[in-house]
Amino acid sequence: LVQRVDVVRASMKELAAGSVTSPRGFQASGITAALLLCDTPAQFAAAFTQNAFAAPPVRYCQDLCQRVPHLRALIINSGNANCCTGARGLQDARRMADLTAELLGLTPDEVMVFSTGRIGVPMPMAKVEQGIRLSVPALTHDGGTQAAHAIMTTDTKPKSLAVEIEIGGVPVRLGGMAKGAGMIAPNMKLAGAPHATMLAYLTTDAVLAPGLLAQVLGASLDESFNRVTIDGDTSTNDSFVALASGAAGNPVIQPGTPEAASFAAAFNHLAAQLSRLLVLDGEGATRFVHVEVSGALNREQGRRCAMAIANSLLCKTAWFGADPNWGRILDAAGYSDVAIVPEKVTLDYDELPIVRQGGDAGTPEALQTAIIKRPEFHIRLNLGAGEASYTVWTCDLSYEYVKINADYHT
Amino acid sequence: LVQRVDVVRASMKELAAGSVTSPRGFQASGITAALLLCDTPAQFAAAFTQNAFAAPPVRYCQDLCQRVPHLRALIINSGNANCCTGARGLQDARRMADLTAELLGLTPDEVMVFSTGRIGVPMPMAKVEQGIRLSVPALTHDGGTQAAHAIMTTDTKPKSLAVEIEIGGVPVRLGGMAKGAGMIAPNMKLAGAPHATMLAYLTTDAVLAPGLLAQVLGASLDESFNRVTIDGDTSTNDSFVALASGAAGNPVIQPGTPEAASFAAAFNHLAAQLSRLLVLDGEGATRFVHVEVSGALNREQGRRCAMAIANSLLCKTAWFGADPNWGRILDAAGYSDVAIVPEKVTLDYDELPIVRQGGDAGTPEALQTAIIKRPEFHIRLNLGAGEASYTVWTCDLSYEYVKINADYHT
Repeated sequence: LVQRVDVVRASMKELAAGSVTSPRGFQASGITAALLLCDTPAQFAAAFTQNAFAAPPVRYCQDLCQRVPHLRALIINSGNANCCTGARGLQDARRMADLTAELLGLTPDEVMVFSTGRIGVPMPMAKVEQGIRLSVPALTHDGGTQAAHAIMTTDTKPKSLAVEIEIGGVPVRLGGMAKGAGMIAPNMKLAGAPHATMLAYLTTDAVLAPGLLAQVLGASLDESFNRVTIDGDTSTNDSFVALASGAAGNPVIQPGTPEAASFAAAFNHLAAQLSRLLVLDGEGATRFVHVEVSGALNREQGRRCAMAIANSLLCKTAWFGADPNWGRILDAAGYSDVAIVPEKVTLDYDELPIVRQGGDAGTPEALQTAIIKRPEFHIRLNLGAGEASYTVWTCDLSYEYVKINADYHT
Repeated sequence: LVQRVDVVRASMKELAAGSVTSPRGFQASGITAALLLCDTPAQFAAAFTQNAFAAPPVRYCQDLCQRVPHLRALIINSGNANCCTGARGLQDARRMADLTAELLGLTPDEVMVFSTGRIGVPMPMAKVEQGIRLSVPALTHDGGTQAAHAIMTTDTKPKSLAVEIEIGGVPVRLGGMAKGAGMIAPNMKLAGAPHATMLAYLTTDAVLAPGLLAQVLGASLDESFNRVTIDGDTSTNDSFVALASGAAGNPVIQPGTPEAASFAAAFNHLAAQLSRLLVLDGEGATRFVHVEVSGALNREQGRRCAMAIANSLLCKTAWFGADPNWGRILDAAGYSDVAIVPEKVTLDYDELPIVRQGGDAGTPEALQTAIIKRPEFHIRLNLGAGEASYTVWTCDLSYEYVKINADYHT
């Protein structure tokens, strides 16, 4: 299968101006709200934040996941997270689904609802309803990029793309969009049990065996959104939903087959690309940093250590300042509460050895600095304690992040 | 005992220009290195960082803790942490002890060694030795404030104070000094098992029953240094050491007595005051924030939740911007992985109700903002899940923190 995946990656085609409407069978619009409609009942899979204050729309969608086999539409507002809004919040989420369904001639159970923005403020329902009413007549089969614009909050650019692969000689497409630049440290779980406010949506026209979409989405999380942290703040509204229209007409993709591996490879590619776009557009970010921890006792320890480094203020500010200060990286690893054999520890910055046997590898500081000045670089830390590894994608911490979030609006 | 403690607190006297040499029997100096000498063998207790990369001087002191009953001197250099320096680091730490002992006519096992500063750079031993040689003849019985100056790194002011209490009619003094402004999130454990770079030293002339000093120091940690976080980065060198000269000549203080409670109250007061001074001098700090979590299932959950809020970039930047954005506080609590009953959650800012039943309490935003503009305020969050509570002391995150730590030195 690995070989097959390589072949697929090689033959995967990025589509110009790709979006969630690149796959057949989908319409979208983005006026003030974003709306995505599948022309036919779509198979779906979803993952949600595990935050204890998961917002009413998240809880609404989680409940749907338990009850319905198909979806037709997603309605998404940005500006207000409808979170910590109690019974009224749930009522407002339901009203958004009801109105969308009514205008589209669907039942409410065919509609999922998503919100992003400020926490703790009641939804301005008159405005939201007006947004929904405008979005329905605006639906088109090429509205995906408009929708990607409409879901932005502090994002500086829309995040939208699509790829095409072949399954049994039939072209199959996958499209995606995402938003999020702050309060980003997704930790989502497949629906049924929630864990990230990034919002991400993936569409495909593939014909899939039942259950396969959930399996693929679940497996993609640790390789994509859940390995992203901008500021370590896991949101109350993080959601990732995939819809499959079946409009490609390919032979049904069965689990465990080379075709399933091909589909998963394309799915993972899109999810990973959207995740990268989130970090690249991180609030105030000037560096994209791969924190690759290996030699961990197990994957969870690798994740905890990589996250400690990626979320360390001292590491993040050093990167912003192009200071190669490796002591801060070892310090963060050292307090992450994972097994470490200090005298076996190695650290590399891209192609440069930085630490060997837990101490200075002797690489001149000027060479180290040159790496940290790169817009994208790799921190490779081996803990010397085991065989497991985990990679996290993060950014630096700049004056601009402080400015954006110090928020003098009040 | 509680009543007794109140009486002691009421009768505790802060000493003007107090320092580690306010208690009788201590000499100190601070030229480039800081040196503290007890005129007679001192009882001692110590707590150290639990960072996996605990520095050679920390390991050296931990070993001493296992072996020796008394100490005479502490030698402290600032500028270089002697951390991740391998076998040479340990040798350098030992050399500092040996030289100090030799110059003072002591055995090396009577001397503890402390270093703070940059990680990963070999100690400039010629300079360090010169510092030690200068510090010995400079020792005086009122050198405490000089020593407090000498241990500073990015601190903007020295942290030094002392109090006097009465034990059995005899005046007993406790003095202390500390340093640290960044890489501050101490998590120390009583020696023997390490857990915080802040350095803190406490002296007393009290006569104490064996074991009492360790018991008091151990119990003080959670009420003082371990409840402090400036940036969440727990250092490789954090150390807190207490020395008792016995020079006051009071009746021996026995565990479990009102006198022990009095002594502990004074000890805790000093440790807490030094901790407060660390936060007040936090790199770039403009606010002192008490994060008080109650209604937690247990103390550990209370601590985890309070630390999540105190270390949240979104909370810290909001405080800097005087933005009362309570959604960020609930969000951080929500991802801290503790038991929460959202509909029972309450939040107060000082005297103002902010959240009731998990939602907006309706206090006008202008009033909320007025609180967050105060130089010191309390965030009081009740999780509605239990009876346990924990308080953390922290500060905001400003442009200045980023500037100090982006460190354009390279």
